Amino acid sequence: MSVTKYLLSERDIPRQWYNIAADLPTPLRPPLHPGTGQPIGPGDLAPLFPMGLIEQEVSRERWIDIPSEVLDLLALWRPTPLHRARRLEQALGTPARIYYKYEGVSPAGSHKPNTAVAQVYYNKKEGVRRIATETGAGQWGCALALACNFFGLEAKVYMVKVSYDQKPYRRLLMETWGGKVTPSPSRETEAGRRILAETPDSTGSLGIAISEAVEDAASREDTKYALGSVLNHVLLHQTVIGLEAKKQMDLAGEYPDVIVACCGGGSNFAGISFPFLYDKIHGRTLDVLGCEPAACPTLTRGHFHYDFGDSVGMTPLLPMHTLGHTFVPAGIHAGGLRYHGMAPLVSQLLNDGLIRAQAFQQTECFEAAVLFARTEGIVPAPESSHAILGAITEARKAKEEGKEKAILFLLSGHGHFDMSAYAAHFAGGLEDFELPACELEGAWDAIQHFPKP
Amino acid sequence: MSVTKYLLSERDIPRQWYNIAADLPTPLRPPLHPGTGQPIGPGDLAPLFPMGLIEQEVSRERWIDIPSEVLDLLALWRPTPLHRARRLEQALGTPARIYYKYEGVSPAGSHKPNTAVAQVYYNKKEGVRRIATETGAGQWGCALALACNFFGLEAKVYMVKVSYDQKPYRRLLMETWGGKVTPSPSRETEAGRRILAETPDSTGSLGIAISEAVEDAASREDTKYALGSVLNHVLLHQTVIGLEAKKQMDLAGEYPDVIVACCGGGSNFAGISFPFLYDKIHGRTLDVLGCEPAACPTLTRGHFHYDFGDSVGMTPLLPMHTLGHTFVPAGIHAGGLRYHGMAPLVSQLLNDGLIRAQAFQQTECFEAAVLFARTEGIVPAPESSHAILGAITEARKAKEEGKEKAILFLLSGHGHFDMSAYAAHFAGGLEDFELPACELEGAWDAIQHFPKP
Repeated sequence: MSVTKYLLSERDIPRQWYNIAADLPTPLRPPLHPGTGQPIGPGDLAPLFPMGLIEQEVSRERWIDIPSEVLDLLALWRPTPLHRARRLEQALGTPARIYYKYEGVSPAGSHKPNTAVAQVYYNKKEGVRRIATETGAGQWGCALALACNFFGLEAKVYMVKVSYDQKPYRRLLMETWGGKVTPSPSRETEAGRRILAETPDSTGSLGIAISEAVEDAASREDTKYALGSVLNHVLLHQTVIGLEAKKQMDLAGEYPDVIVACCGGGSNFAGISFPFLYDKIHGRTLDVLGCEPAACPTLTRGHFHYDFGDSVGMTPLLPMHTLGHTFVPAGIHAGGLRYHGMAPLVSQLLNDGLIRAQAFQQTECFEAAVLFARTEGIVPAPESSHAILGAITEARKAKEEGKEKAILFLLSGHGHFDMSAYAAHFAGGLEDFELPACELEGAWDAIQHFPKP
Repeated sequence: MSVTKYLLSERDIPRQWYNIAADLPTPLRPPLHPGTGQPIGPGDLAPLFPMGLIEQEVSRERWIDIPSEVLDLLALWRPTPLHRARRLEQALGTPARIYYKYEGVSPAGSHKPNTAVAQVYYNKKEGVRRIATETGAGQWGCALALACNFFGLEAKVYMVKVSYDQKPYRRLLMETWGGKVTPSPSRETEAGRRILAETPDSTGSLGIAISEAVEDAASREDTKYALGSVLNHVLLHQTVIGLEAKKQMDLAGEYPDVIVACCGGGSNFAGISFPFLYDKIHGRTLDVLGCEPAACPTLTRGHFHYDFGDSVGMTPLLPMHTLGHTFVPAGIHAGGLRYHGMAPLVSQLLNDGLIRAQAFQQTECFEAAVLFARTEGIVPAPESSHAILGAITEARKAKEEGKEKAILFLLSGHGHFDMSAYAAHFAGGLEDFELPACELEGAWDAIQHFPKP
């Protein structure tokens, strides 16, 4: 029997998060106030986030202790397994050895709870009783509802109306954990009422839902806001993934030649890659590939520029790769990758040549997902299928070149709540999108007057 | 940080199945031919099953080697974790220590693939190219589709039409693994055509689907039949669960005072309990509790008698606890527990006083499921919720009696494809069923003329 899985014990759950800000060759540019164009300070963020998270957002400490209350909850599903994908290797006939770290074993089915439990912990510690957030397809809303339930806080989730109607099971999952889910646009906020007055039939958008959640949090004393990706502290919390994976690759007697993950806002990519990028920054050879949808090609076709983090312009300006906050990606099934920007930390690493990116069409991603399900068993989330295709692409390259190679990719979640996307794929109904340059130019023009980083 | 999980390495996957037939205080009665009333021989089963499985069905060897090809596949998700349910204990304020073994980490989301991969292996070995089976809610159909895919066999799944229409996601899961799913009754078999001629709008039943699958297998040279529970070889394959759990309880420094599992056909119950029952048969004190739905109370209100294994009378007569094969249980959401009979091995153990049983209503089971989801995170399958309620009942008893106690239960699967049942529960729409005795008498009368075991 050949080894196919590398399991750690609870003792091996990391006790500290790795903060890559301590090691960046080029320091991060600060977020700017959109009105004054001046760097914002911790006080500017205080209405939305607890001070414990704001400190992490600006910290340059390399290692940050994980509180024991957070560790106790992470231990419900961590350490997550690292698999050797032997059956996939055989199907590809590749000399490459393919490993994947699997985050779908969390109760919410993705990597998102890693940061949700940490965020809710720091909110609870500062007396917050209620957290408002937005969710599109529902992965982040589920993670936050789960974490709020653990700490006894109320989770108020504004869910994009079209998803609320089309994905009742994800909504039910949030409700099973006690979350309060409201279809957005709603009548509960000024922003929602304004949209409904203009467009009574609005099916909503992530931008509108963010506006509602931010307004909710800013207008209530007992409530803060939470974000599932993009920000430094969110990426920090995900580094438990890569820290565990390093130990597991050690057990396998390997160091990866290439690391692959999908990129939406950047948090799962950061989670698996940052602890390894520490080594690359300090001289080790390593290829790190971010995979994004061709319909929303932030890293491959966006510009590094200051832009709003949200679609409506309520957040500070962030220095990042962006397609422009007014860019509306096509309705691909990988809802978690439909984001106009990219985490500033990931963007900076791309600028500095420490990582690279590749864009894929959704049909080829679903083909990769089905091949993976038929070889390794697990049915992946549409987002994660981009990482699978990235890994397969690298494995095929290794075959062409006749090179042995260790490929590590992150399988960020399962697709149990995305089976309708598979149905569309099997029915041959998935559209691919080759964005004409002119379609990108409009949204890009709209941010030209923002400061250049 | 207190320990909440006991993980084994791949080395710890059992290399042999435990066959409790070697240790039964009262030997199993043989299955009988329904026409002659005589014990059937291996040859009678040969049209439906490969000889490798028939040998296991009648074996009295205590330990049976697991083929390395089966081990390689089990290793995709085994060993499964054993958790200490500390947060549930705290919520209950019980002095009991509650442990649960979790089988939902398999790609199909339940314990069913443990036997599916073994069954398909033995079929493949004897040149079978196609396996026909039936599925109700879809757990077994998914497991068989997964296993057939791994070995390159075609899985032909007759899925009860009402489930085919109501549970498209489970059907899609089977199709993702390459399974061919047909709504039953279908026009592809005599049995199906006969039903459709009488009742063109028939929504199907498990009984009809079994008839179609058996006819399919019996009428094609390249095809055999597979069953997901009840038979001795199926229960045998599930003992990997309990064998792992013994090692994990050792790691926890515990031996269970009570073991709890749900009972439909008996396979997950057997999986967790048989390796521990070996100790009980040899003198150790141990309480073993099977939990069943009040709407289908086979162990608590059925009779030990010879009866057909299926609803339509195509199988040999099996010596088992039964409500009568014509008994039609109410449409509870725990579809996997809606079976009129019980595995002969489990039935014999109940007769001999080695196990006991308790019946629960579905509303209280869903309340237990939600409490579990809110404390431990995992959203359980409706079937598994019966085991959770059994464990909670034991933990409350321990609290009343002021006794410390180690409770081990089996969480046989997750509820990701059962969220509509949770929706019905939250809407207050679940019916409970207290069966009047007269309702049981009709089906019982119908089998009175069968031989007594």
